[in-house]
Amino acid sequence: MIVRRSSRRIHIGPVPIGGGAPIAVQSMTCTDTRDVQATVAQIKDLEAVGCEIIRVAVPNRAAALALPAIKQAIRIPLVADIHFDYRLALLALEGGADALRLNPGNIRHREHVQAVVSAAKERSVPIRIGVNAGSLPPPESPQEAAKSVSERMVDLALGQVRLLESLGFDLIKVSLKAFDVPTTIEAYRLIADRIPYPLHLGITEAGTPSAGIIRSAVGIGTLLYLGIGDTLRVSLTADPREEVRVGWEILKSLGLRQRGVVLVSCPTCGRTETDVISLANEVERRLQGVTEPIKVAVMGCVVNGPGEARDADVGLAAGRGRGAIFREGQVVRTVAEAEYLTALLEEVEKVRRERASRSMASD
Amino acid sequence: MIVRRSSRRIHIGPVPIGGGAPIAVQSMTCTDTRDVQATVAQIKDLEAVGCEIIRVAVPNRAAALALPAIKQAIRIPLVADIHFDYRLALLALEGGADALRLNPGNIRHREHVQAVVSAAKERSVPIRIGVNAGSLPPPESPQEAAKSVSERMVDLALGQVRLLESLGFDLIKVSLKAFDVPTTIEAYRLIADRIPYPLHLGITEAGTPSAGIIRSAVGIGTLLYLGIGDTLRVSLTADPREEVRVGWEILKSLGLRQRGVVLVSCPTCGRTETDVISLANEVERRLQGVTEPIKVAVMGCVVNGPGEARDADVGLAAGRGRGAIFREGQVVRTVAEAEYLTALLEEVEKVRRERASRSMASD
Repeated sequence: MIVRRSSRRIHIGPVPIGGGAPIAVQSMTCTDTRDVQATVAQIKDLEAVGCEIIRVAVPNRAAALALPAIKQAIRIPLVADIHFDYRLALLALEGGADALRLNPGNIRHREHVQAVVSAAKERSVPIRIGVNAGSLPPPESPQEAAKSVSERMVDLALGQVRLLESLGFDLIKVSLKAFDVPTTIEAYRLIADRIPYPLHLGITEAGTPSAGIIRSAVGIGTLLYLGIGDTLRVSLTADPREEVRVGWEILKSLGLRQRGVVLVSCPTCGRTETDVISLANEVERRLQGVTEPIKVAVMGCVVNGPGEARDADVGLAAGRGRGAIFREGQVVRTVAEAEYLTALLEEVEKVRRERASRSMASD
Repeated sequence: MIVRRSSRRIHIGPVPIGGGAPIAVQSMTCTDTRDVQATVAQIKDLEAVGCEIIRVAVPNRAAALALPAIKQAIRIPLVADIHFDYRLALLALEGGADALRLNPGNIRHREHVQAVVSAAKERSVPIRIGVNAGSLPPPESPQEAAKSVSERMVDLALGQVRLLESLGFDLIKVSLKAFDVPTTIEAYRLIADRIPYPLHLGITEAGTPSAGIIRSAVGIGTLLYLGIGDTLRVSLTADPREEVRVGWEILKSLGLRQRGVVLVSCPTCGRTETDVISLANEVERRLQGVTEPIKVAVMGCVVNGPGEARDADVGLAAGRGRGAIFREGQVVRTVAEAEYLTALLEEVEKVRRERASRSMASD
């Protein structure tokens, strides 16, 4: 039902972006980039939870010089985040960065921009132009002041795009992040029809997880539903692994990517005959290491239970003291309440084994 | 930027729904409705966190007979959730329910539906028709089988709407919930233009908070951004207070309602000069009891910090060891790192006091 906006294909390292490629989940380290060991350790943790592209801040020369050692120790592509200083960009490119996040308009001299663009082009390294509402310059004319924040963000981004294009560079990705969700959505919708390049999504400074996850899911989710977005990063004031988890859940919720367990479970109500909350949490915890897609339903009553349980790969529809266990749409057994967890996990294992042997047979 | 779909106004108790009224946050109890004390206690907890309409399951006669005592002890409107049995609906209406959630198509005899409709009409009590993908009947014809789940949900809902209309009843609200987010969005979009009644939003059986919050925010948030929705309930396998909190955060993120603190805080990166994560969490914790709207920014660097801090009611842009504190767009002081928390909370108090005295002066 989601028709994705068509965009030009670029590559960040081996990862294809845009042109119908899977929407990639990104994150950013919060270590000091000069500390290679800490940065590599964090990136490996992020790789393990599904991070597909990693960005590091490069605020100084020592950070830029740490990039080759970081790059060598990790498997996912490395993006160098650079502000103002073109020499850091050149160092990052020499050091093996797979992409730059850089606003060329912030580099004062055109010949310096030219130097960065030439070095990037030579290595087929893309540049992401990242406009942030928080760092918009003040309006310079009454006409500009009359525009919305979204329009001013788009104008700024288009100026930077035209600058790169004027230098014969088109390995471009663009982001337009704001804290305000409608402003962010509006900015992306405005630019989507005006440039052919892939777009990177995010809600910036979204806050701590309790509200930031919700802001990000609403903003990024709405754009993805509208077909906009080729990569995404959830920005949270938290361990960046949480950013990756949330990014995946947003994509899974819209059926755009699959990974690990999708758990259907009812909110419980006065009709519920079993402790669904504990059971659902325990099932989730026991299956959190699973990376192949599988849908599991934990349902506490007979009104919506059987329908959802039948629709999942493995499901439970609990009644009074006993429940029906479904596998791939069929009731495979009924068990007593004490056996719900064991039975569900056993059936999940069966599905996983069957699928693994089927996929081996088809190799 | 969000243009809300126009819908007919109904009232659930004193709460206006549709026709431009504020989008109301609902929840549902998970106590045994027959247990008046437990149910009332849970509803009071929910009122305290901003629940505006509460639904209780009424699966049997004893539950229906508990409604007057519950109703008497609570302040927010009470919705009785009834399946199949028209006598329970009549009892709920006699017992003072402010609305019914009932699918009239599930009541076998037309005269029984007529009895419920007459009793509801007499009391100006609305009926929500709630179609759930998990309980769709199997398709009865090849034409029906060829339709999408969304279309079949809409067909079912329209049939129920026509049934109520044929009995001269129009105090109607409709919901079309599925676990699958795109299916849910599609169903609401399809029905939005075909009926004039307000719509209640939800993603059903969304699961435990870790994924369920994200699914709900994506689904409900997208619909709200598209202008659809007059009430909402976030369904989580968790304490229902969490449903209310998430509902409010979704509405706040889109600027559709305001309540309590909006916290802007950066995700931290290699440029961050202070422990933003702990500070932001502590600020959030200390301000969680505030119900009047206030925007607070906790920013850890000088790239995006000052812009966001200036834009908030109270903000911090932290540098190396010292930070600038902003109030209503102006730097009001710079403080050492150890004083960030105290200074932020003091400025928040100043803003609250000023606003309180301003609002008293204008009374």
